[in-house]
Amino acid sequence: MHTFFSVYQQVRAHSVSLCKALEIEDFNTQPAVFVSPPKWHLAHTTWFFETFLLQPFLPNYQPFHPQFGFLFNSYYQHEGKRVQRDHRGWMSRPTVAEVYEYRAAIDSAILQLDPEEPEIFRRLTLGIQHEQQHQELLVYDIKYILGHQPLFPSLDLGILQPQLGESGWIKIEEQLSEIGHSGSQFAFDNEGPRHRVFLNGSQISSQLVSQEDYLEFIEAGGYQQFSYWLDEGWSWLQAQNIHAPLYWQETGKEWWIYDLKDGLQPLKPQAPVQHISYYEADAYARFRAKRLPTEAEREFCHDQLLNHQLWEWTQSAYLPYPGYRAEGGALGEYNGKFMINQMVLRGGSVATPPGHLRATYRNFFHPDERWMYSGLRLAEDD
Amino acid sequence: MHTFFSVYQQVRAHSVSLCKALEIEDFNTQPAVFVSPPKWHLAHTTWFFETFLLQPFLPNYQPFHPQFGFLFNSYYQHEGKRVQRDHRGWMSRPTVAEVYEYRAAIDSAILQLDPEEPEIFRRLTLGIQHEQQHQELLVYDIKYILGHQPLFPSLDLGILQPQLGESGWIKIEEQLSEIGHSGSQFAFDNEGPRHRVFLNGSQISSQLVSQEDYLEFIEAGGYQQFSYWLDEGWSWLQAQNIHAPLYWQETGKEWWIYDLKDGLQPLKPQAPVQHISYYEADAYARFRAKRLPTEAEREFCHDQLLNHQLWEWTQSAYLPYPGYRAEGGALGEYNGKFMINQMVLRGGSVATPPGHLRATYRNFFHPDERWMYSGLRLAEDD
Amino acid sequence: MHTFFSVYQQVRAHSVSLCKALEIEDFNTQPAVFVSPPKWHLAHTTWFFETFLLQPFLPNYQPFHPQFGFLFNSYYQHEGKRVQRDHRGWMSRPTVAEVYEYRAAIDSAILQLDPEEPEIFRRLTLGIQHEQQHQELLVYDIKYILGHQPLFPSLDLGILQPQLGESGWIKIEEQLSEIGHSGSQFAFDNEGPRHRVFLNGSQISSQLVSQEDYLEFIEAGGYQQFSYWLDEGWSWLQAQNIHAPLYWQETGKEWWIYDLKDGLQPLKPQAPVQHISYYEADAYARFRAKRLPTEAEREFCHDQLLNHQLWEWTQSAYLPYPGYRAEGGALGEYNGKFMINQMVLRGGSVATPPGHLRATYRNFFHPDERWMYSGLRLAEDD
Amino acid sequence: MHTFFSVYQQVRAHSVSLCKALEIEDFNTQPAVFVSPPKWHLAHTTWFFETFLLQPFLPNYQPFHPQFGFLFNSYYQHEGKRVQRDHRGWMSRPTVAEVYEYRAAIDSAILQLDPEEPEIFRRLTLGIQHEQQHQELLVYDIKYILGHQPLFPSLDLGILQPQLGESGWIKIEEQLSEIGHSGSQFAFDNEGPRHRVFLNGSQISSQLVSQEDYLEFIEAGGYQQFSYWLDEGWSWLQAQNIHAPLYWQETGKEWWIYDLKDGLQPLKPQAPVQHISYYEADAYARFRAKRLPTEAEREFCHDQLLNHQLWEWTQSAYLPYPGYRAEGGALGEYNGKFMINQMVLRGGSVATPPGHLRATYRNFFHPDERWMYSGLRLAEDD
Repeated sequence: MHTFFSVYQQVRAHSVSLCKALEIEDFNTQPAVFVSPPKWHLAHTTWFFETFLLQPFLPNYQPFHPQFGFLFNSYYQHEGKRVQRDHRGWMSRPTVAEVYEYRAAIDSAILQLDPEEPEIFRRLTLGIQHEQQHQELLVYDIKYILGHQPLFPSLDLGILQPQLGESGWIKIEEQLSEIGHSGSQFAFDNEGPRHRVFLNGSQISSQLVSQEDYLEFIEAGGYQQFSYWLDEGWSWLQAQNIHAPLYWQETGKEWWIYDLKDGLQPLKPQAPVQHISYYEADAYARFRAKRLPTEAEREFCHDQLLNHQLWEWTQSAYLPYPGYRAEGGALGEYNGKFMINQMVLRGGSVATPPGHLRATYRNFFHPDERWMYSGLRLAEDD
Repeated sequence: MHTFFSVYQQVRAHSVSLCKALEIEDFNTQPAVFVSPPKWHLAHTTWFFETFLLQPFLPNYQPFHPQFGFLFNSYYQHEGKRVQRDHRGWMSRPTVAEVYEYRAAIDSAILQLDPEEPEIFRRLTLGIQHEQQHQELLVYDIKYILGHQPLFPSLDLGILQPQLGESGWIKIEEQLSEIGHSGSQFAFDNEGPRHRVFLNGSQISSQLVSQEDYLEFIEAGGYQQFSYWLDEGWSWLQAQNIHAPLYWQETGKEWWIYDLKDGLQPLKPQAPVQHISYYEADAYARFRAKRLPTEAEREFCHDQLLNHQLWEWTQSAYLPYPGYRAEGGALGEYNGKFMINQMVLRGGSVATPPGHLRATYRNFFHPDERWMYSGLRLAEDD
Repeated sequence: MHTFFSVYQQVRAHSVSLCKALEIEDFNTQPAVFVSPPKWHLAHTTWFFETFLLQPFLPNYQPFHPQFGFLFNSYYQHEGKRVQRDHRGWMSRPTVAEVYEYRAAIDSAILQLDPEEPEIFRRLTLGIQHEQQHQELLVYDIKYILGHQPLFPSLDLGILQPQLGESGWIKIEEQLSEIGHSGSQFAFDNEGPRHRVFLNGSQISSQLVSQEDYLEFIEAGGYQQFSYWLDEGWSWLQAQNIHAPLYWQETGKEWWIYDLKDGLQPLKPQAPVQHISYYEADAYARFRAKRLPTEAEREFCHDQLLNHQLWEWTQSAYLPYPGYRAEGGALGEYNGKFMINQMVLRGGSVATPPGHLRATYRNFFHPDERWMYSGLRLAEDD
Repeated sequence: MHTFFSVYQQVRAHSVSLCKALEIEDFNTQPAVFVSPPKWHLAHTTWFFETFLLQPFLPNYQPFHPQFGFLFNSYYQHEGKRVQRDHRGWMSRPTVAEVYEYRAAIDSAILQLDPEEPEIFRRLTLGIQHEQQHQELLVYDIKYILGHQPLFPSLDLGILQPQLGESGWIKIEEQLSEIGHSGSQFAFDNEGPRHRVFLNGSQISSQLVSQEDYLEFIEAGGYQQFSYWLDEGWSWLQAQNIHAPLYWQETGKEWWIYDLKDGLQPLKPQAPVQHISYYEADAYARFRAKRLPTEAEREFCHDQLLNHQLWEWTQSAYLPYPGYRAEGGALGEYNGKFMINQMVLRGGSVATPPGHLRATYRNFFHPDERWMYSGLRLAEDD
């Protein structure tokens, strides 16, 4: 077996491993439209390899099931009709066991491909990266599913707890700099082209904002004071009746936070605040008379910061870099078509699979989303 | 063991038996707000016995789980807060196995009660009737869950196929008659008091409307011609883009109908049309220049008709009979509080558990509902 | 001029007279989908005469404006497409002055018809009755428009204040009775055919429920106690955040009520409570351990009661009488197609134009509506 | 009178002049939540001067009406509660005549202030700029109101027709450049601080996209081909059933476009396409294998382009410039709190009042909005 396939197999095995502790009943629950059931993730990542590798490149390949293209396509318009996103939780069938059979069958067919073929290599790499992205989403979704059970069960997925980093400020001198990906290593198309940007002088905190810091904002009435908030953030707050980050619960005068591994736990002052929306991150920064970093500033300091803790909101909208052009066909739908109404997050999280990150990595979410592993650090102008 | 308990055990066993063929994955799926997941039915019917029998009547009874009152209360305001109806499908926990343990524990505690105590007897009887109602809902909900899978799986629950009955018309002479329940046998409170009603002369069809009959309505453009429809029915049709009964699919020029036992099947001309809303039943009657029977007419003819096939829409609104008064407390919430915006259905269905029906039985649904086993028969004035 | 036309002209003049005190700005305001702007009422009633009389019966009649059929049709599907109901307030054009020109032109053309022609006579009569119904709606809608201004302006439309009636109970003996219209005088089709109904023994209050009576319900926590409410009424209450009848405002510990003629006024204990929904009427009756009358009971007592004060909710759903059949064509859309999800109100109101009422008159609204002049009286079984 | 007041009076008179041709009925119509009724604009701009100048600076000033602060505040949270945005059209009162009295009273009081006082001068200037912004919105809103009448009336507001500009491409060399406002002349806070940005080499079209150009996109199936669209744009298209820019109507095989001055008119090939959303602008650019300019590119070329025709969508999100900080208090709510989910438009439009524009001016709208005078020009990378 080609050595490349051992990476493939490790990554594929990791998805299954993340679901090991689940009960069968957990696998097709969808308590919110942005959540995908774990079974769906397991099948969809498999469909990706079947559709973009086996069907075009394995001679005489017959689809595992004629309907799975409809069931497990996510958003690839090029690949035709698909189950409505908010109906994913309706699918009790195929069963979990059948999805595992699907995975096994595709995995064994994939081994028949020749990874030395450049286009096959390119797509296998993309499929692996794609599966890693879904592994991170799996963690978010499993946490959301269990954290929205009235019984608040806990489950150990083997994810580390995020840390704060060193306290202090890192200076960024005014300068013409470069950001973005270049070179032959894998990166998503939205990370390039590498290009020049002018950095104004500023400094960036070396530490994430802690739960203790954030509690001061809450206790100072931050969620009741409109002047900290973007106008749409304030409306969001009112409409959703939000008073704290996701998974926080006030019991009497104490705050408890749901954690996937430990269940409901008292607030941990020295842990980073997590599960906040852009609106909350931005309001908190204004409360401190600071701001969020831009993605260029964040990328510039990447090696000096403790990455891989929580995705950090930046003040940058998710837009194409100068010279960006999406590739054609279904795989071109991967990134470019989402470049509106989303903000960039940088840095990675404890839920990001090992080996998946780069300094140039651009994650992105809508400003009201917060079920992902999001946090923030502050910046300020000179 | 008291002989009464053998009825209890038979009924309880039947609920479990209906779920025998399900996969674990089917048990907590909720593809529409009016559908309850099978696991929820199994737990809720158990909660009913625990709440209304064990807690008040079994000395020193400790709840099986402190939170199950919150999880499995349906709509009893007297019993406090409960899981939002449209979140029932979110509950992957407790697992199916845990719910079966819950059932077993409650069943064994129930046997310690004295069914000769009149109030215990009365409530046990109500609990059994309540469970039977949920057995029928289980059939509707399982069909809806499987019938909304993209793969249209089939499942044999042991339910018979509905039959048409004899063709012909049964004459009702103009007269003062009596309807409603009286006597010491069990009936729901909404079936009484027995009272006099004046019947105008009419006749009522001895046969349900068949699929073939109904197809003529469709092919005559019935769903495109507003003059057959109540105004709100016409709006419903447009808003929901409805062209046929629930579970009908047009493939080319053929109609296929999803059946729980057989999966997708060609239309069966000599089977009764099923899964229609009041709006559709009423429109069809107008198309035939007939009308739906009233509930008094339907009750008057009960013994002359082939009951237990499909619930038949009547032209009667679900309202209290003269002299009706709901009992106090939580059990008084059973029927009376639903007496608005619903229409009465009579006759029973193949999904109604044996022994559950009476001539005076009043079923009721909103005019746009159709996932239940509903059909219709025609009537006309002299 | 035929003497019949003097009735026509009086009725037509009354519509204009009701709008005399309005400012131009009031004429096309639509603060809720169920409200029609006054200008629209003036034009729509005119369109009715143009469409159902001038176009079919006046030789060579040319429409006043080719688009007015689209603009001012209400709900007559037979007459083709029309402006969406919730867009009526968008129409600043035609202006008020142009609508008055339209009225004048149609009125003068109508005088050229021969009212001795039976079908013309029948339709003219219907058109007059139709305009009278809109005169009552005009009062509701003008009150709603002005009562939802932040400045709460008052306006005198010449409408009397409703009175309570005599205190006492009127006995209804158990009997076979008859209700419904018969004979050659005008009545809407839904008032017939006259038919027999069996009345159980009961008594009915000779007095409407007063504001003082109703205040006791509020002060006893009636809006916070679910057991008084129908289930859908309780949901309505919560969703709409309702604590009192429409137009009531609590200021400190005092209740103020908006009245069209007098503006915001303190509650008047001896005036009938007004602007309540069916849900509220039904809950109040349950609070008093009474019930609402049926429409048969209410019709039976009609002459013994002080009518023409407020429309009184009955416990009867709006359904066809035995033997009812709507006429064909557009005019058949007048009543029958609304016979679902509505409850009957009887008795008339101070806003009903003189000469428009009959003992058999059936008004109907949805159970959550309350911008009309609605009130209630109680009944009880023997 | 201070010469500065003649500017004040000219600007105030222009608002009235724009409404001269309206009928009274047009003044309080609100056919969409984003539209404000003309009467509201006239009152709100007056409220701005009353609230931010007369109340703080004119000794013993008594509000014109105690409730107008509630009625005519737009979104200034600092100034307390206000009429819900979608209820602005409900306000038939105060009448148009009363609003003109309000304007006259405030105007005469304003003349008593001393414009040499720096803070008074600063606020008067802001009030004038604010009124000019509402003058432009008045044009959009009047067009929307009349363009959504079923009768499509026309109205001459004295606005010029937009022109295409010269055909050709303007080269932008790769360079470090500066954008943003500096200096003592008035600019909105969001236009600064002036700061350096790196421009990659590109070129920008000297001409707006014409109706003829855009028609090619439509005729090539642009609205049916997902690959041209951002994902949220494609969803927007489907949900709103959009097939062309706002005000375009297809009649048979011809396109007609509603114009405020001329009513419904055949498409004008050599006029710029107008009333497009960001989604449409971006899709069109992708269809041409080009892109939209960034705001820095657009500002760099400002003097070389024919400005003041249509607001041109840029590819830049509306975000704070480096070093931007909103001022405190109510006037700080002017710009900063809207910096999310909006895109920048540059260049001005024929509806922008004379003297209101600058090269650094940043207009901003949500990507789905198109009732404003929006168009586009293309850019491309070297």
